[in-house]
Amino acid sequence: MGSETAPLRERKKERTRVDLATAARRLTAEHGLDAVTVAQIADAADVSVRTFFNYFRCKEEAVVGVSPSSLREFADAVLDRPSGEPALTALIETLLQTASDPEMAEGWELRSELVRLYPALLPRHLAAMADVEEALAASVAERLGTDLSSDPIPTILVASVVSVVRATFSWWTHSDRAVPLTDVLARAFDALAGGFAVVDVEVSAR
Amino acid sequence: MGSETAPLRERKKERTRVDLATAARRLTAEHGLDAVTVAQIADAADVSVRTFFNYFRCKEEAVVGVSPSSLREFADAVLDRPSGEPALTALIETLLQTASDPEMAEGWELRSELVRLYPALLPRHLAAMADVEEALAASVAERLGTDLSSDPIPTILVASVVSVVRATFSWWTHSDRAVPLTDVLARAFDALAGGFAVVDVEVSAR
Repeated sequence: MGSETAPLRERKKERTRVDLATAARRLTAEHGLDAVTVAQIADAADVSVRTFFNYFRCKEEAVVGVSPSSLREFADAVLDRPSGEPALTALIETLLQTASDPEMAEGWELRSELVRLYPALLPRHLAAMADVEEALAASVAERLGTDLSSDPIPTILVASVVSVVRATFSWWTHSDRAVPLTDVLARAFDALAGGFAVVDVEVSAR
Repeated sequence: MGSETAPLRERKKERTRVDLATAARRLTAEHGLDAVTVAQIADAADVSVRTFFNYFRCKEEAVVGVSPSSLREFADAVLDRPSGEPALTALIETLLQTASDPEMAEGWELRSELVRLYPALLPRHLAAMADVEEALAASVAERLGTDLSSDPIPTILVASVVSVVRATFSWWTHSDRAVPLTDVLARAFDALAGGFAVVDVEVSAR
């Protein structure tokens, strides 16, 4: 039971979790949420139903949940940005990096599509998004030497950056997609970092 | 059938809708969403079940839906701000005004609480929030002389302002409430308008 074995066991557990989540999403996309059972998901990932419940409370959580290790990766990515970089920049760069990873982007696109198709996924999906936002906010607070309970700014900063990502993605999905998503995202982040001064144009009288 | 009668009929219809929505929220708060029927809601508002379905598709929509006239009011409030005022300011002032109306604030607080208690309300609630955001974005686009389909900025601007309101409200609800909500909201909007430069402090090395 040397300390060398723990990371291996951790990696194996993480692998099982990813296999289960991938199977849950694939089966839901193929057969619809109602038709998929926990037994089928466990089968597809070569584990028992009992093992499934070591990782997830229900099939909905397997489809849209975000794993503790993913939350840790998000949080670490924000902390690993150069010290001295503004918190907003650190957060934006972290999310741009996620968006530019094709595998990651595809995973998030499938997840959004499934949530759109199956409203029963909404409660778990929103809970997962809240987990992501809280993990990011904790890192922002750490960078700023403040804490989440006494200072509202980290929570608000993360909420607005995440909402910009979501709104950009949604706008782009409904557009003719003539402009690449990453370009629209970069423009959106510029507008946010500039306090939306870009839109302080003279307006005509009504 | 003079043109004078139309506004009166409109007002009467709006009154019925408000009565139904108020009854739906009150009954849900008292008895729980599952126990409440459309017939009870219609009874409480002194109309028939058939009339209920002229206004709403289901009881969930009666609890969390936003009426067309409320959407119009939000949109008009943004357009009615002084021309020459930046779009971000016009939007913020509109929402601050809503938040400072005690009746309005209470209505939104009850709605959030019911959504938290009954996840079955989530799909209709999110649809209603999307309606509000789209109405606000249309007004922002009109102020900027642009349109929603070719320019992502109005959609993104509205999403970030609304998310700041939501995050502030959520942070404040979980805080000890020592600082008034409107003060936290004003600070949050200042941070947003400043591109979150307020948090560009020197950070210590990790």
